[in-house]
Amino acid sequence: MKLLPTIEWVPTNPASIIPGKVRFIDQTLLPLQIEYIETDSSVVIWKAIKNLQVRGAPAMGIAAAMGVAAALQFLDANDSEQIAKEVKNIADYLATSRPTAVNLFWALDRMRNIADRNKLSAPDTLKKILVEEAVKIHREDVAMCRAIGEHGVTLLHDNISVLTHCNAGSLATSIYGTALAPIYVAHERGMKIKVFADETRPLLQGARLTAWELTRVGIPVTLICDSVAAQVMREGRVDMVMVGADRIASNGDTANKIGTYGLAVLAKAHGIPFYVLAPGSTLDRSLPNGTFIPIEERDASEVTEGFGKRTGPEGVSVYSPAFDVTPHNLITAIITERGVHRPPFVFSD
Amino acid sequence: MKLLPTIEWVPTNPASIIPGKVRFIDQTLLPLQIEYIETDSSVVIWKAIKNLQVRGAPAMGIAAAMGVAAALQFLDANDSEQIAKEVKNIADYLATSRPTAVNLFWALDRMRNIADRNKLSAPDTLKKILVEEAVKIHREDVAMCRAIGEHGVTLLHDNISVLTHCNAGSLATSIYGTALAPIYVAHERGMKIKVFADETRPLLQGARLTAWELTRVGIPVTLICDSVAAQVMREGRVDMVMVGADRIASNGDTANKIGTYGLAVLAKAHGIPFYVLAPGSTLDRSLPNGTFIPIEERDASEVTEGFGKRTGPEGVSVYSPAFDVTPHNLITAIITERGVHRPPFVFSD
Repeated sequence: MKLLPTIEWVPTNPASIIPGKVRFIDQTLLPLQIEYIETDSSVVIWKAIKNLQVRGAPAMGIAAAMGVAAALQFLDANDSEQIAKEVKNIADYLATSRPTAVNLFWALDRMRNIADRNKLSAPDTLKKILVEEAVKIHREDVAMCRAIGEHGVTLLHDNISVLTHCNAGSLATSIYGTALAPIYVAHERGMKIKVFADETRPLLQGARLTAWELTRVGIPVTLICDSVAAQVMREGRVDMVMVGADRIASNGDTANKIGTYGLAVLAKAHGIPFYVLAPGSTLDRSLPNGTFIPIEERDASEVTEGFGKRTGPEGVSVYSPAFDVTPHNLITAIITERGVHRPPFVFSD
Repeated sequence: MKLLPTIEWVPTNPASIIPGKVRFIDQTLLPLQIEYIETDSSVVIWKAIKNLQVRGAPAMGIAAAMGVAAALQFLDANDSEQIAKEVKNIADYLATSRPTAVNLFWALDRMRNIADRNKLSAPDTLKKILVEEAVKIHREDVAMCRAIGEHGVTLLHDNISVLTHCNAGSLATSIYGTALAPIYVAHERGMKIKVFADETRPLLQGARLTAWELTRVGIPVTLICDSVAAQVMREGRVDMVMVGADRIASNGDTANKIGTYGLAVLAKAHGIPFYVLAPGSTLDRSLPNGTFIPIEERDASEVTEGFGKRTGPEGVSVYSPAFDVTPHNLITAIITERGVHRPPFVFSD
């Protein structure tokens, strides 16, 4: 099994970690083309996050952190105080790209904090520390995804069939993914797993990304339109639902791709377990429950002209929230790198 | 309010009902182009039904009946026995176009029966009788849809918000529609109605047809991706669900566009009434329940390359049933031209 790395720090000279650039797959071109964006521009990173060239809560966090580190390298600064100030500016700017996934803000906070703690270092030292912190966030994500996979695989057995929504796979993280991590671990161990992938309108991350990355490594996947999920549950074709998360409140309420809430209601109605898989960086302990999670609305054109052809009438109203919140009482367990958490969920400090 | 006629019998010479052709909107080109197909070829009709150029259970029935009548006109027959035999052949052929909607078979049966009952008439008389029967099916459908609208409007009130799926509107019937008939009647009477239209993947009949026909006559409509339905219910934005039907078994189990069953489960979970609206020709009294309704599976390409661009990986498995069956216990009422039927549903003779 050979997963492609979604995102990497690429030093200009292999002998030194700086200078370098952040390099990531342009996910808007999949499954037709595998192309990479390599940049040290914060504007390019901002646009890449906004336009979903890099997406998935953990991958966005890594991209933003590496983006801060990359953009700072060529700052002609006299002292590290000035660099720390610029880190804050760039982090504030990147934080405006998308509002829901908390991993983005968490990663940017880490960059602000490391800069602040090291503002007495020499400028070149601080620049290196920033890159090291971003690379550390990436490395930690690999370990977290792996741990989620190890905990999650305990919920699987041979010949199981899992329904997933959107893409919480390799492409949404450093590697392995969150919702798909147990499936990759199971596949490595020779277990037979079958996946149903919701195509996930409007941007079809399930069709374009999940079906693509599973097919690439030989895991059997059946693509369905979102509206077919209820039917495959009714037909007894899926044993459980596994999804990722963009933000989880202290009580377990979970924001994830639009359609997740409906799936959770359907899973409950069919007596099918519903699992949320996410790294600790997705937990927002500052929020008592999901009503406080800001939900991004996407542009109408993603719905009415998403396939390169107009599919809705001119001027029609569109309501297109990017996420919904699944209340904790519909969630069977939340799997993080720490283990399988069962209700009642208490993620406060 | 000016609805376009979906389908018509067009005589070559206005002075006589024969010869003539059947004329219908090519629904695959909406909302970008309004183009008509005018034909007397049974092959063109078969393909038009198969490829959804004409779709919607009642409209398919009318098109098939008119198609039989049109195709028979130029048959060089010595006697009506031969015509009746050919009616049977063409009806058998058109019946293979799509399996689920019973209106198609019902309309073709009427054509077979009228031919059989009149096989002692002169050939030209029988040809005229066949056209008259097809036109009668069309005229009856107008009356049935209107009656459904009149009964259904009793369920509405000012400022109500209705969620609908696929297209059970004017384009699915002769005019008025089934699920949309009460909305058109309410609009005529000056009531304020708001509609949420599921886009309805894979073929986007909600976006391309429902949103288009409602917008055309000035009824406010908000287009949503199918996966947003649960969220609008949760937000209290819809007061009821109204859908059409392709076949209703004796016990009320209802086959309709894929996604309808999931909506019914969601409506129940949110305490929202779920109404099915259909003419009597959609009732299949020969079936005790929905498990006997044959469900068409559509081609994978409709999901993976639906809009001129490949959106799923090459060779991925796709499961794409065109319909699902909503069990009667999830249906608040079934509205036909005869009235509002509440459970227990008993549609046997």
